[in-house]
Amino acid sequence: MLTIGLIGAGYWGKNLIRVFGEHPGAHLAAVIEQRAERREALRRRDPRIFVGADAGQILDDPAIDAVVIATQAASHYDLARRALDRGKHVLVEKPMCRSSDEAADLVARAARCDRVLMVDHTFLFHPAVIKLAALARSGALGAMSYYDSQRINLGLFQPDVNVLWDLGPHDLAILDVLFGEQPIHVEATGYCHLNPDLPDIAYVSLHFPSSRVAHLNLSWMSPVKVRRIAIGGSEKMAVWDDLDRDEPVKIYDSGIGVLPQGERDVILPSYRVGDVSSPRLAGTEPLASLADHFLHVIAGVEASRADGGLGLRVVRMLERAQAALDASLRRVRQVRPADGLVGAQ
Amino acid sequence: MLTIGLIGAGYWGKNLIRVFGEHPGAHLAAVIEQRAERREALRRRDPRIFVGADAGQILDDPAIDAVVIATQAASHYDLARRALDRGKHVLVEKPMCRSSDEAADLVARAARCDRVLMVDHTFLFHPAVIKLAALARSGALGAMSYYDSQRINLGLFQPDVNVLWDLGPHDLAILDVLFGEQPIHVEATGYCHLNPDLPDIAYVSLHFPSSRVAHLNLSWMSPVKVRRIAIGGSEKMAVWDDLDRDEPVKIYDSGIGVLPQGERDVILPSYRVGDVSSPRLAGTEPLASLADHFLHVIAGVEASRADGGLGLRVVRMLERAQAALDASLRRVRQVRPADGLVGAQ
Amino acid sequence: MLTIGLIGAGYWGKNLIRVFGEHPGAHLAAVIEQRAERREALRRRDPRIFVGADAGQILDDPAIDAVVIATQAASHYDLARRALDRGKHVLVEKPMCRSSDEAADLVARAARCDRVLMVDHTFLFHPAVIKLAALARSGALGAMSYYDSQRINLGLFQPDVNVLWDLGPHDLAILDVLFGEQPIHVEATGYCHLNPDLPDIAYVSLHFPSSRVAHLNLSWMSPVKVRRIAIGGSEKMAVWDDLDRDEPVKIYDSGIGVLPQGERDVILPSYRVGDVSSPRLAGTEPLASLADHFLHVIAGVEASRADGGLGLRVVRMLERAQAALDASLRRVRQVRPADGLVGAQ
Amino acid sequence: MLTIGLIGAGYWGKNLIRVFGEHPGAHLAAVIEQRAERREALRRRDPRIFVGADAGQILDDPAIDAVVIATQAASHYDLARRALDRGKHVLVEKPMCRSSDEAADLVARAARCDRVLMVDHTFLFHPAVIKLAALARSGALGAMSYYDSQRINLGLFQPDVNVLWDLGPHDLAILDVLFGEQPIHVEATGYCHLNPDLPDIAYVSLHFPSSRVAHLNLSWMSPVKVRRIAIGGSEKMAVWDDLDRDEPVKIYDSGIGVLPQGERDVILPSYRVGDVSSPRLAGTEPLASLADHFLHVIAGVEASRADGGLGLRVVRMLERAQAALDASLRRVRQVRPADGLVGAQ
Repeated sequence: MLTIGLIGAGYWGKNLIRVFGEHPGAHLAAVIEQRAERREALRRRDPRIFVGADAGQILDDPAIDAVVIATQAASHYDLARRALDRGKHVLVEKPMCRSSDEAADLVARAARCDRVLMVDHTFLFHPAVIKLAALARSGALGAMSYYDSQRINLGLFQPDVNVLWDLGPHDLAILDVLFGEQPIHVEATGYCHLNPDLPDIAYVSLHFPSSRVAHLNLSWMSPVKVRRIAIGGSEKMAVWDDLDRDEPVKIYDSGIGVLPQGERDVILPSYRVGDVSSPRLAGTEPLASLADHFLHVIAGVEASRADGGLGLRVVRMLERAQAALDASLRRVRQVRPADGLVGAQ
Repeated sequence: MLTIGLIGAGYWGKNLIRVFGEHPGAHLAAVIEQRAERREALRRRDPRIFVGADAGQILDDPAIDAVVIATQAASHYDLARRALDRGKHVLVEKPMCRSSDEAADLVARAARCDRVLMVDHTFLFHPAVIKLAALARSGALGAMSYYDSQRINLGLFQPDVNVLWDLGPHDLAILDVLFGEQPIHVEATGYCHLNPDLPDIAYVSLHFPSSRVAHLNLSWMSPVKVRRIAIGGSEKMAVWDDLDRDEPVKIYDSGIGVLPQGERDVILPSYRVGDVSSPRLAGTEPLASLADHFLHVIAGVEASRADGGLGLRVVRMLERAQAALDASLRRVRQVRPADGLVGAQ
Repeated sequence: MLTIGLIGAGYWGKNLIRVFGEHPGAHLAAVIEQRAERREALRRRDPRIFVGADAGQILDDPAIDAVVIATQAASHYDLARRALDRGKHVLVEKPMCRSSDEAADLVARAARCDRVLMVDHTFLFHPAVIKLAALARSGALGAMSYYDSQRINLGLFQPDVNVLWDLGPHDLAILDVLFGEQPIHVEATGYCHLNPDLPDIAYVSLHFPSSRVAHLNLSWMSPVKVRRIAIGGSEKMAVWDDLDRDEPVKIYDSGIGVLPQGERDVILPSYRVGDVSSPRLAGTEPLASLADHFLHVIAGVEASRADGGLGLRVVRMLERAQAALDASLRRVRQVRPADGLVGAQ
Repeated sequence: MLTIGLIGAGYWGKNLIRVFGEHPGAHLAAVIEQRAERREALRRRDPRIFVGADAGQILDDPAIDAVVIATQAASHYDLARRALDRGKHVLVEKPMCRSSDEAADLVARAARCDRVLMVDHTFLFHPAVIKLAALARSGALGAMSYYDSQRINLGLFQPDVNVLWDLGPHDLAILDVLFGEQPIHVEATGYCHLNPDLPDIAYVSLHFPSSRVAHLNLSWMSPVKVRRIAIGGSEKMAVWDDLDRDEPVKIYDSGIGVLPQGERDVILPSYRVGDVSSPRLAGTEPLASLADHFLHVIAGVEASRADGGLGLRVVRMLERAQAALDASLRRVRQVRPADGLVGAQ
């Protein structure tokens, strides 16, 4: 039985409280939350859990084996560092940190202390991603060529994070698993509608050593919610539409090959348009699987599928995309006429 | 009655033969086609139309009032130039030319000769685009902020044109009508799967003086066909899904505004999620409307909605996107490891 | 504050426990449940609620003001009768009873005791049904002509209820509200796949005095879940697709009228195919609205929208449909060849 | 080369003119059409085809080998009879005749004259139906239990035919192929909106010797067009949505079986919810395949898949459904109050 303390009972924290609270292998002993009324509600709901306002009440408690950090990104590094230094296992919300320096430091500390450091990239435990990763690994897709994601909806503006850091980590973690390589070149551009410093639309392109390309269309400005990822392969192509209740994953027996060239200097593509299949996915809840996995990794019976190294790689890609986005918006600003800031047709 | 000669009876040329052949105000007198078997088929189908192999048979015929050019892009400039110089009106397939220099020269010649020069940007005559343009013009959308297009499908690889010049002209012409301004900055990247010199996936971002942004996701590598354009406005947002038989255009009474700020330094967005409506569109065929319009412009009763100036602006945007795409692919090549060209996981 | 006792903590009972447990105007004091392990789980979850195994512990408790009955249909009549006789208000799961005699008796008792008797036809509190009912009432649809429902999915076979009594009450309650009239003629047929006495597919047609027709396609045998209701009117038509996350209700500005006849003996219909609109629906949870309503009716501040009379009318329609279904299956059995029971092609 | 004469150049006749006109094995020599302006248009389009107004010009012409009849249903019997009696092969539009007596007479005549009598049930040549029939025949679906069709749209009212005879033949022909058995019991009801004698909505249920059931929901009163057929089997279920451009046929690896019973008297169903697959269908045009088939049957190289016997069986089912529909509407009329004909809420 692992004794767990959780910091941050916000939107996502409540889900973590539920899955660890119901987990037979975990004892959720304490929750730290800054807002008084939320603390009151937590106490009413389950008087057996200690509820406090100060993270130290968990971090300094020797009875706590593991700390789950579900606070805003700005505090992740400090809380995780303190937890690791006190010999506790850590599960931290994504993005792991606000910089790769911080993330690398946490990875090093976890290694030094021999503690488990895991990042809550929940999508890696989604049955659809598990299916896509298995398809990629098995070679069923053939040589993968592209990853194209549309992750758009209306709003959820946050004061301290832009759309890239809010929605991007999902795709970058999935990419890390599917492609298994780091990008060699990243480009990005975007649009700042509400706040000139926080893009609410971001377009990111990542180029990989194997010549693969990934493209992310991230937006808080779309009236329609879309969660759609397409993966191109030489043998098959796959599309995951997370909002399709009936057939979220479709595998297309379609592809484009190159016909053997004759004497002429023309490349003749060969198309294949074939059957479509939609595999039945497991009905498991991703977050419950992640909680399971966290306990199994701590118990040493599973190798981590979302360790600090993954978290670090995702933060590195975020940093590179942010740098490219900043540079692009700077270039736009330089050529924009002074009176062009207020658009009108 | 306008006497028309058509050059190029390929895939699209056949449609033009149909609409001008059936038009009560036009007399399609001659068709030029290089492939002998197609000429034979044309003669069988309608013996009253002259069918030849040499463009000069049309260009030098004083009985021909107007020339419709539906050949490959490489020959557009030369054919259009000769037709204008001989005092004929010209309707030329899109893209108008392969360079903005050629396009500008045609525009100047048409002005000098006082002849009509029109580009076959058929989508501008599509009921959905006419509806979207009316919404934009009327202010119903409010201040427009973005244009986001997905135009993807499997293949139709062409030996002499990349995906940007094949699919891009549709969006760039629509953008010209909707935004009514020229981009100040263009970025692009892409992916060459079959032919290292002809991208089959292109991602293009265009930034405009009024701070609007447009993004095009163009691909010949998608197993699923998507033709979807979203337009963001401060009052309403619109989505056109060209493959939705029942409700292609949807207008969302949704938006994001900025709440009046209090003393705190935080921007508070205000969301509005409202009704959705789908206007009934006219059932007119875009190409038939374009043929009508060509005749009306020649007759002087309508101002051109797809003149040489539009064709030139589209070619300029294509050139800028191509330059950005080339630069991006060059940057990728520079950082790519030598053994990375053959991707494998 | 109304003190409530609930009988039956099964699938739906758990939802009722949640909404009444969280309702500020209700005090859920006691729950009766026959299965010991469920009682244990209920006690663990909230030790403040009395949990027992015998309905008498609620029915005989003078502190209980209202009883919520969420047991199987067979026990509804007896439990509701006892509760009313002891002066308690009653909310009973649908279908209200297994016969119209039982239902009529409950209505009479509730009137005699001056207690509230309400049936949990939750759909009547669904924002979509509220919208459709408002459209019908306002005359916006014009003269309504038909109601067509598809309510099909895979399984949920129940040992003591057929598909008609399981899925039919939803449509019949909605019909009662929309049409406001009782059917004059009911036909039905169906199919018994698993159990020769319990149809798992039922087709029901109801004819109304005003010449309207309603048709229900109810099935436990469909691999795809469909929840779709269409309502035809002379001015507009409406479709509610309960599984459409984005635009569940669509209103079609389409209709069929009759052109004024000329001298000829031919009826000329006039079609109108127009815009489609999808109203934004309230985000309220139907069951929470129903709980609210139950308390407001008891408090005398709202007239009941789902009283015993409605429950009785629904049971009457179920009885008539069941009789028609039995008669149809009997006719089929009479003409079926003896060796035809085992189907083979 | 088969010399063909066609009677009736209306909506569907024009399609038949196209496919036989382009068929390399057929010589479309003559077309009979009653409307003068259509005859004029036909002559302009192709001066090599004889165009006349009197069917006798084809029926009495010894050079005509086969007659294609695309007139209104009322004239089918007389024209087909005369053609067969003069030794010509016949392809007749569906429904074959207006009564089974007429249809049986044609079948007998065709047998006597040893001529081919084929009915244009085009859907039997649709790649989706061919696929479904192959699945049924191969046993892949297991024991089939039901056929459920929704065939609804707005209008196309016809003065001389009701919705049953207009839309029903499609389903009844498909059913004949899939089930390979004749119904033992037919029920139907419907609704007359425009014309009290011509139902514009019809609900038909057919019960088969093997205990299978089929249900047709036919309507001219739906604002949305639906063309959806579901087939239930013990092994797999199939759905054909004719309006789904991408994946019209879906096969569900889902089913309901019966678990071996224990000592208790309860039937325990076993659900199976599995993968979904969508086979790639051939791109062939159904009508062109039918034209091919007609020629091959005449040449004796293929056995007829849509012979007079099929046409007769479809007419018999239509007659039985019509009788059931009439009886139902009579029952409704008997119980309807006198003042209820004008519906109002």
